[in-house]
Amino acid sequence: MNTTIAALATPHGTGGIAIVRVSGPEAEHLLRACFVPAGTENFDSHRLMYGHAVQDGQAMDECMAVLMKAPRSYTREDVAEIHTHGGPFVAQRVLNHLYALGAQPAAPGEFTRRAFLNGRVDLSRAEAVMQLVSASGARAADAALRQLSGGVSAFITTAREELVSMLAAVEAALDYPEEVEEEVTADLSPRAHKLAHTLLEACDERAAAILVEGLEVVIAGKPNVGKSSLLNRLLNEQRAIVTDIPGTTRDIVRGDMMVDGVRVKLSDTAGIRDDADTVEQIGVDRARKAIQHADLVLLVLDASRPITQQDTDLLALASSRAHLVVRNKSDLPQAAGVPDGIAVSAKTGEGMAELLRHIAAHAGQPGETLLTQARHMHLARNAAGSLLECAQRVAAGDPLDLCAVYLNDALRALGEITGEQANDDVLDSIFSTFCVGK
Amino acid sequence: MNTTIAALATPHGTGGIAIVRVSGPEAEHLLRACFVPAGTENFDSHRLMYGHAVQDGQAMDECMAVLMKAPRSYTREDVAEIHTHGGPFVAQRVLNHLYALGAQPAAPGEFTRRAFLNGRVDLSRAEAVMQLVSASGARAADAALRQLSGGVSAFITTAREELVSMLAAVEAALDYPEEVEEEVTADLSPRAHKLAHTLLEACDERAAAILVEGLEVVIAGKPNVGKSSLLNRLLNEQRAIVTDIPGTTRDIVRGDMMVDGVRVKLSDTAGIRDDADTVEQIGVDRARKAIQHADLVLLVLDASRPITQQDTDLLALASSRAHLVVRNKSDLPQAAGVPDGIAVSAKTGEGMAELLRHIAAHAGQPGETLLTQARHMHLARNAAGSLLECAQRVAAGDPLDLCAVYLNDALRALGEITGEQANDDVLDSIFSTFCVGK
Repeated sequence: MNTTIAALATPHGTGGIAIVRVSGPEAEHLLRACFVPAGTENFDSHRLMYGHAVQDGQAMDECMAVLMKAPRSYTREDVAEIHTHGGPFVAQRVLNHLYALGAQPAAPGEFTRRAFLNGRVDLSRAEAVMQLVSASGARAADAALRQLSGGVSAFITTAREELVSMLAAVEAALDYPEEVEEEVTADLSPRAHKLAHTLLEACDERAAAILVEGLEVVIAGKPNVGKSSLLNRLLNEQRAIVTDIPGTTRDIVRGDMMVDGVRVKLSDTAGIRDDADTVEQIGVDRARKAIQHADLVLLVLDASRPITQQDTDLLALASSRAHLVVRNKSDLPQAAGVPDGIAVSAKTGEGMAELLRHIAAHAGQPGETLLTQARHMHLARNAAGSLLECAQRVAAGDPLDLCAVYLNDALRALGEITGEQANDDVLDSIFSTFCVGK
Repeated sequence: MNTTIAALATPHGTGGIAIVRVSGPEAEHLLRACFVPAGTENFDSHRLMYGHAVQDGQAMDECMAVLMKAPRSYTREDVAEIHTHGGPFVAQRVLNHLYALGAQPAAPGEFTRRAFLNGRVDLSRAEAVMQLVSASGARAADAALRQLSGGVSAFITTAREELVSMLAAVEAALDYPEEVEEEVTADLSPRAHKLAHTLLEACDERAAAILVEGLEVVIAGKPNVGKSSLLNRLLNEQRAIVTDIPGTTRDIVRGDMMVDGVRVKLSDTAGIRDDADTVEQIGVDRARKAIQHADLVLLVLDASRPITQQDTDLLALASSRAHLVVRNKSDLPQAAGVPDGIAVSAKTGEGMAELLRHIAAHAGQPGETLLTQARHMHLARNAAGSLLECAQRVAAGDPLDLCAVYLNDALRALGEITGEQANDDVLDSIFSTFCVGK
């Protein structure tokens, strides 16, 4: 870790500003070698300086730069940032010069890995950084931020303290069997059960998946019931909220919208690019596949016409999943015998607010989803499993030192969440999912 | 201009850091409203602070922020920057909050436009910013940087000074015709000629286009002479230089490479995605079209086989453009009667350095291409035209006050380059090509 690393910290592409970030013992030296302040600046820590990026006495850019002296930096090492004009070329040129001067190209997530290794953040907080970067909506960002500000760490630390306390009790019982063994044994099983359930309750895979990935909503229904109109109407209703995030909602093909801070990925079983010919071909088979992967199915019926066998088949299919029956074309005279459902008109917009409320209900509560990362849930479940095994052994009258093995297993699993126990392989696999420059 | 504007200053997409930039009288107020420093920071100018972006008392991100007090800022107004975690969501959330607090979304180029309107840079320097952002290679970046540091301004200012001096001489001749008219008249025509030629010499459209757009090199030749192999070999030879700029050279389909700091856009007339079937269909017609748009044609012959009518036809075609004859397959026994050219082997790499040297020669000299923007060259040519017209009028014995009209026209055209004479329409058309946040 006594190398000095450098990378582009801003996204690639065209923009006003690009940031080249450097971290390590040589950061100040490298900054002084490739940046000349315009005034009488003296590279004071945290002072944003105006000047020129230079190479061999030639200016490469007119830019800003800042030095952040250890430990008051992202990595707790000396960190330098050069803020060049945006665009891919200029920043890359500065970066190439830094490499020529001895900086090493940073691996994905290496800045954050150093922040972890230098004790600035634990592993769950380091992971929260990447979750925040890739947050798809307000609720996902909020959950990441809770994790970043130590929510997961605190929860896991409390659980570990309870485990350590249980282990201490076992230790005492082993040392002084006459005095405390019976009491400890009686106590251990309920304590293990209680902690296991606390951990399991924190693992709501479905809520976490919806938070991180978004809610997958499939619009199903036979041809000409108004699926595409409904899709467009829903997207239009929600457009204002997300209008400024390019590449997501402007891209009408993806059909994303935000409902109550959760990203909802809307698609109709026809695929919104399908032309009239393809729509005619859609059958129950195709709908079946889409429905199998949906978090929520909107089954659309044309309420102005009698239902057909195809409607009934689709209803039967949808009933295997979370679904809402949507009675479209409420603006027309209604046919008899159409099943109950939410009456809407994709044409006039009638009933859309009601439909959105129902969709929101399926996105879960905005409350505090505690663990949101698959890795954390996997480890917490392992810890809970070890605790339940321990409880079972105690109940079976197994020797206390054998029971303690399972408590130690649980302790180790939880330690991997915050990083006390994480080995290099774990770290590699976590940080390799980061972007370079983070 | 007493509004306060805000925009994302870094490219959209996933990265370590995103910058939200604010400029205007309310910048400090807005920063204080949505950023809480962690320590005892007091929003000193140019001090990078650590803290939290907040909305209604809730943290939106753990981030950095800096206030740059007027006039020591990019726009000469108060400027605030909030450096959030990268990724599209977090920065957008901070931005939305700023809009809710009264900031206006910045128009494309509006920060730089304000820098111009507040007198920090002239128009040619403002334009250089965008040229630097979109620079495709070292030479283009260097030219933009010369313009940014005032190279174009200085050249135009000198030309304008000469024009003003000529106008003063005319004025004197009109005021005191007996004393100076003859002398001024004798002097005016050579002076106008000289300045016109200085201006025209600064306009090298071809050099500028190559600098800004890159050199368009087309590989032509009949099927199976090794065009694709040559393309791949050339790209591989140059790969190391440009390896770190994504979206350009990694994208093998585009076939870009850097030669001597100039971007070379390489394509073969078959299109490198073409499969064997399509290659067979390529005829003289298709090659003709590609050759018409090339800055340089590499006409490839298979030197191991006798040339055919198709080779001869292509040679005739290529001779209408700048071209190099490339004798491929130098590793095989050579056939007789193949025209002279650069002997290479795409298979072994033989002769590639020589070929690259020849391509570089067509990219022009690395010297100081003065005017690189179409707008500047158009105006400089107009000014030169007015000067030549003036010289002609003087020679024809027209009255001096009529001649002076053309000098004033020239002065006005040059003033549009640096912005002294630019009206809102001109500014709108210039800054609308900028990105938002610059």
